Amino acid sequence: MTSAPETLPPHPAIAAARVADGELLIGDVPVTRLAAQIGRTPFYAYDRARLDARIAELRRHLPESIHLNYAIKANPIPAVVQHLARLVDGFDVASAREMQVALDTPMPRARVSFAGPGKTRDELARAVAAGIVIALESEGQMRLVADLAAEQGLRPAVAVRVNPDFELKSSGMRMGGGSQQFGVDAERVPQMLGELGRLDLDFIGFHIFAGSQNLDADILCDVQRKTVDLAIALARHAPAPVRHLNMGGGFGIPYFPKDRPLDLAPVGDNLATLAERIAAEMPQARTIVELGRYIVGEAGFYVARIIDRKESRGQVFLVTDGGLHHHLAASGNFGQVIRRNYPVAIANRMDTAPCETASVVGCLCTPLDLLAGKVALPRAEVGDLVVVFQSGAYGLSASPTAFLGHPEPAEVMV
Amino acid sequence: MTSAPETLPPHPAIAAARVADGELLIGDVPVTRLAAQIGRTPFYAYDRARLDARIAELRRHLPESIHLNYAIKANPIPAVVQHLARLVDGFDVASAREMQVALDTPMPRARVSFAGPGKTRDELARAVAAGIVIALESEGQMRLVADLAAEQGLRPAVAVRVNPDFELKSSGMRMGGGSQQFGVDAERVPQMLGELGRLDLDFIGFHIFAGSQNLDADILCDVQRKTVDLAIALARHAPAPVRHLNMGGGFGIPYFPKDRPLDLAPVGDNLATLAERIAAEMPQARTIVELGRYIVGEAGFYVARIIDRKESRGQVFLVTDGGLHHHLAASGNFGQVIRRNYPVAIANRMDTAPCETASVVGCLCTPLDLLAGKVALPRAEVGDLVVVFQSGAYGLSASPTAFLGHPEPAEVMV
Repeated sequence: MTSAPETLPPHPAIAAARVADGELLIGDVPVTRLAAQIGRTPFYAYDRARLDARIAELRRHLPESIHLNYAIKANPIPAVVQHLARLVDGFDVASAREMQVALDTPMPRARVSFAGPGKTRDELARAVAAGIVIALESEGQMRLVADLAAEQGLRPAVAVRVNPDFELKSSGMRMGGGSQQFGVDAERVPQMLGELGRLDLDFIGFHIFAGSQNLDADILCDVQRKTVDLAIALARHAPAPVRHLNMGGGFGIPYFPKDRPLDLAPVGDNLATLAERIAAEMPQARTIVELGRYIVGEAGFYVARIIDRKESRGQVFLVTDGGLHHHLAASGNFGQVIRRNYPVAIANRMDTAPCETASVVGCLCTPLDLLAGKVALPRAEVGDLVVVFQSGAYGLSASPTAFLGHPEPAEVMV
Repeated sequence: MTSAPETLPPHPAIAAARVADGELLIGDVPVTRLAAQIGRTPFYAYDRARLDARIAELRRHLPESIHLNYAIKANPIPAVVQHLARLVDGFDVASAREMQVALDTPMPRARVSFAGPGKTRDELARAVAAGIVIALESEGQMRLVADLAAEQGLRPAVAVRVNPDFELKSSGMRMGGGSQQFGVDAERVPQMLGELGRLDLDFIGFHIFAGSQNLDADILCDVQRKTVDLAIALARHAPAPVRHLNMGGGFGIPYFPKDRPLDLAPVGDNLATLAERIAAEMPQARTIVELGRYIVGEAGFYVARIIDRKESRGQVFLVTDGGLHHHLAASGNFGQVIRRNYPVAIANRMDTAPCETASVVGCLCTPLDLLAGKVALPRAEVGDLVVVFQSGAYGLSASPTAFLGHPEPAEVMV
């Protein structure tokens, strides 16, 4: 009745999985033992060793003068953020709550910066009081920060977020170029800097971010060059020397069947060349690469249990106790135009060859609740564990957990 | 700099809005006064009178013998569910938590039914204890319920959820026909009914649901006829007379620019004809139409405040304190293939003619956070209120509220 499985090369995340006795290891713990420790499914598990390894890999390739920031929005759980506080050079936050998560770590507050097009008065007042760096996304936001600073008798460090006049092509998400709600159009920044110089704000530099989730080193290198060119050009109009240049990130991870991992080596070489230019042109600038997904994405696993196995008109459905309410991105409903499968496997049958094509669905009463459509899997039974790889970023926090009223999953570090 | 606004006929929801002194009324309360009462933005507001009017309209068109159920998943907040408990004939729940919301109302437990492909053992045990109707989605679920019933010494009322051999065409979502995770393929139901007759379960009938969000009365009538045909055919194999026939719903509401409201009159006439057939063929059957979105969708408003107004390369952006973390569906990231705008307006400038094209965005640091792209609006300023209509169903509960750590919106009944 069931169709024969497709034959594709294994996804890099599955190929890199550590396995013992047929079981996926997360950290050094076999997945069924981890499930027993947690006491319930579904759960997200984050592998501390993979976080360490990813930061080490970045340090190996990126020049020493480049600072590495973690964008908390990718995964805000305190266990992850506290762990990374020892490993990265700064944090980027997108809300007052994320700011507090950052400030709860030993990270110095001057190394925390706050970006976001819709900062409220209340949030900005808290950011001024906290003494973090505020990325100004518009002239209006600049004036509001100046008012709040005067009220509090403080002189906050501010950076101008620039909407560049170029974009990051072939990206998961375009966040610069053309018309944008983010930042101030590059061509209008010189005028804004003039006004900024007359306000009682501590201008420290720029935040220039063109896009995210890119797997092509050449495109990333090109956009980094343009970013530095733009920063140097704008620095001429600045009321003070540039001491802070956040170049954004955009480093992608492979999600879908044909994706291949980003080659860090040429990106590192390119940044080394650019670091020399920056040193010559903006000698006081601390240059920052800001990464979220690239740091945590591959360290996270979403695990759900199969609670029913059914066949419907020749198609096998593995019904799990998880679903899109925990992992919206894997269901294809978070920014994907064409739905494609995240890499999945039967976590307690990693040594068994695929023998059937099955769809992994969640427990929700909606056809949107598809975790993997028609994938080649070993035969799985009720009680088996399904793992969704590449789940460390934009997973639980980006999902509609209240939808249909099912329990929230656990989140653990291993 | 800005482009001229498009000219489309007003959306039916905007045309039907009640306005006084230029302000949208929710209930009888002007929107700025409601915002002052709540003390903060954003918020969801649900209009009690609109719920009443919608139920009255349904009762006017549907024959008296048709029972009307509310599917709690569309909007599970207690204020809505408690209000509807007096107005509808039953509730459908999709999880143990929704079950408890239903049981917290005066609705008799025998009028509560529980559907969902991924019911856990724990949830089913609770449903058996509660004495509600359990929709069996697979043979495996049937056997598990029988085991749990024996453990508890109870004989629960069960209905078989059928995956029909037809589908609801032109629907927002297809939930029947072809291969599905929902229910048991129609052609396998007779065999299942044989086994069910040998188990100590109280078979009461069928749940046949083909799809949702349909605006075409002819298509709905056609699928209702097929549903009744199928129920009559399957009833011949049933171990007991059919006392319960849940025909699903599928009634849509207009969301997008060219959508027109469903014409209830022909649907009511068709159901009257079908009710006669049901009375003749399954005289004990209580026939249920189950609606969620159609009951609550048009009664709900999402209101956010404009906190920045910016122009970027000729395009106007109204940046609000709301966003996709509150209203994922309006951002186009919940099952839409092509992103289209929900109806939006400036709630405190309802009498002002559109004079510019603007995009309404949320406060999140992602380009996905678009509440309305390039819509014709009166000129709006910081402090104005944006309203998203048609927000009563699959709104907050279907949104990733924790994303980026901003505060949750209020939810109020008016």
